[in-house]
Amino acid sequence: MKADFIKKPMEIEHRSMEIIAPHLAGLELSEAETKVYSRLIHASGDVDYAPLIHIHPQAIEAAQQALRSGCDIYTDVEMVRTGINKRKLQTFGGKVHCLIADEKIAAMAKEEGITRSMAAMRHFGKALEGNIVAIGNAPTALFEVLRLMEEEGVRPACVVGIPVGFVGAADSKEALRVQDYVPYITVEGTKGGSPIAAAALNAIMYLIDDTRP
Amino acid sequence: MKADFIKKPMEIEHRSMEIIAPHLAGLELSEAETKVYSRLIHASGDVDYAPLIHIHPQAIEAAQQALRSGCDIYTDVEMVRTGINKRKLQTFGGKVHCLIADEKIAAMAKEEGITRSMAAMRHFGKALEGNIVAIGNAPTALFEVLRLMEEEGVRPACVVGIPVGFVGAADSKEALRVQDYVPYITVEGTKGGSPIAAAALNAIMYLIDDTRP
Repeated sequence: MKADFIKKPMEIEHRSMEIIAPHLAGLELSEAETKVYSRLIHASGDVDYAPLIHIHPQAIEAAQQALRSGCDIYTDVEMVRTGINKRKLQTFGGKVHCLIADEKIAAMAKEEGITRSMAAMRHFGKALEGNIVAIGNAPTALFEVLRLMEEEGVRPACVVGIPVGFVGAADSKEALRVQDYVPYITVEGTKGGSPIAAAALNAIMYLIDDTRP
Repeated sequence: MKADFIKKPMEIEHRSMEIIAPHLAGLELSEAETKVYSRLIHASGDVDYAPLIHIHPQAIEAAQQALRSGCDIYTDVEMVRTGINKRKLQTFGGKVHCLIADEKIAAMAKEEGITRSMAAMRHFGKALEGNIVAIGNAPTALFEVLRLMEEEGVRPACVVGIPVGFVGAADSKEALRVQDYVPYITVEGTKGGSPIAAAALNAIMYLIDDTRP
């Protein structure tokens, strides 16, 4: 049994970022974008994410500004809520909302024949305005956020839309990339997931202030 | 905006499994293995997982037997706890333990210069005996479980070891594959993560009983 592996969290993180760096060569990223890309790759263990990540030119700035003003984060699943550094978010004054486990949302979803995460986004509605949306699992939730933006004029400060899977995920993320209402962070194709969405948010918070509460 | 996407959870899951199936062709999997492989790929959105997944011949049976007897699951991070269907686990009598956010574990980790998830596994120690270990994030936690098995004779019923990343993850998972003490489920290389580890556990529970509480 190997006993000489690295055991200190910040050392692991720094070494990891060094290993990721060469895989970002040629992508012409800003320093801030490099941090976000690196953390997404770090969370997935998958350097093949590099060319699939899409960050709208205003996304990082918009998300930082919203966070600094104490915005909240609205997410589709509990795993994203768990993955977000909530102590850090609290230092800015924000909190995370997720209603997928709510009884009333479950009843609404059953009645309408839709997923619970989709029902939750519909229920949030206008509350998303000026806040950050983080989708890490359900394409249906992202489709609903896009509908709220298009049909009801809701404008989140930024949408981190990284649902995962083979049914709707790629389509919903492409729809996010082609809309023109709000800045976004996404990953094209079927890959994604809650640690990836949470990593994007954590990266942006650490860009504002890298101390880790 | 496309409005004709699939909105029913079980339909999404079934369609997803159909899309994944051809990617498992040629791997000569049992029906139970097929279910576990499919759910790992479903959780990652990444068909390239197929040849990287390793399931010890006794792993699914051992995990099912332990679950049926009401075993608990010990995990490294809260995201794995969140991802596991705990209502389902409860129907068998089990619960999930995670101490990464525990104050005493944090103090122990700081004092010993190790990660909190590693300190948590060390603290669990003999309690892992006969239960299931699920590692979805920290190679250090998996290395500690391997040490407990080798040096202290601790024998979990099954180890689901799917840590992620570029520092230690691949090594820790290889060490899991070459040990001969307990059956395991793992993914070779840098890829992995908490949804993948949780998916393995959920797949095994649904193999026992596919109703979803």
